[in-house]
Amino acid sequence: MRIIVVGATGLIGSAIVEALGDRHEIVRVGHRGGPHTVDLADAGSIARMFAPLGRADAVICAAGAARFGPLAALSDDDFRLGLANKLMGQVNLVRLGVESVADGGSFTLTSGVLAQRPMAGSASVSLVNAGLEGFVRAAALELPRGIRINVVSPGWITDTLKALGMDPAGGVSPSVVARAYVRSVEGSETGQVLSP
Amino acid sequence: MRIIVVGATGLIGSAIVEALGDRHEIVRVGHRGGPHTVDLADAGSIARMFAPLGRADAVICAAGAARFGPLAALSDDDFRLGLANKLMGQVNLVRLGVESVADGGSFTLTSGVLAQRPMAGSASVSLVNAGLEGFVRAAALELPRGIRINVVSPGWITDTLKALGMDPAGGVSPSVVARAYVRSVEGSETGQVLSP
Repeated sequence: MRIIVVGATGLIGSAIVEALGDRHEIVRVGHRGGPHTVDLADAGSIARMFAPLGRADAVICAAGAARFGPLAALSDDDFRLGLANKLMGQVNLVRLGVESVADGGSFTLTSGVLAQRPMAGSASVSLVNAGLEGFVRAAALELPRGIRINVVSPGWITDTLKALGMDPAGGVSPSVVARAYVRSVEGSETGQVLSP
Repeated sequence: MRIIVVGATGLIGSAIVEALGDRHEIVRVGHRGGPHTVDLADAGSIARMFAPLGRADAVICAAGAARFGPLAALSDDDFRLGLANKLMGQVNLVRLGVESVADGGSFTLTSGVLAQRPMAGSASVSLVNAGLEGFVRAAALELPRGIRINVVSPGWITDTLKALGMDPAGGVSPSVVARAYVRSVEGSETGQVLSP
């Protein structure tokens, strides 16, 4: 397969590229740098990203920003960032990318465990992640030509927990998370929230 | 209790007012007309609504617009409407209303069954409803002074199903839906998605 990976240089994106790269052709897209870049918050940038890439069998997004912080301190702009970037950025990847995906191909987006298991500070992130999962369940019913769509809820990465000073015991490695993306791309599920 | 009901004149709002009105003081807020009005899509309008109303023990929102339609036909503006009105409108009711709610009071918002059970045409509505549920789960962890927050997922109203030409057998009446709001206001739950 020919697979576009948005966020290919990130912690999860690199693991996805490693997991799929030996048997598929990977088109890496980064936020800055590299041959292909995209700004998820800018629909024009997404359209310009797809135009020269041609047909793909799968589009994976392991990128998207949303603001973590105390509810009382989150500003209008903090909420707007998550809505425009991680939420509508990934929705627009689907809306603007569907014509670039081959019959029977797939989209795989990224939400996060805070959608269902919130913590203090996650009001905006939980909204964004849960909203994405709602979108994916619905969009799966309407994508044309047998195109599938799933969303991976990666759970906490061990290194992220360590960096935040949290107990790393409940964490998973990026290579374990990557398996959920592989399952979405190579399997036949659609409309699902996949957890590692 | 003194209870602010936003959307008091709607199908569900009227049933809520009827269910709570005999033992609580209800402050009715409509979209247009009546002594108190609000435009959920406008944070300034929400702030202006709360200012003269004084303290309340509960704020209920049974209002909020989002666009239903085929995914391929939904425009940027269609998505924007749901994000600004039903989603961020209700989030902003909480952010801007928290100082108006008494200790131990509550917020009760409204999502919808499409959050978890989508249908063709619900991509934007499912996103909005699921996002609200994610927000409520998270916000419940942070609201000050014992203030609670829940979201009611009303399910399909029988009359709505009839109006859409769908099988009304799976529908519920507004008075049954209203019980979920009563449970949120008079009970002790928080962070929950309540279904009739």
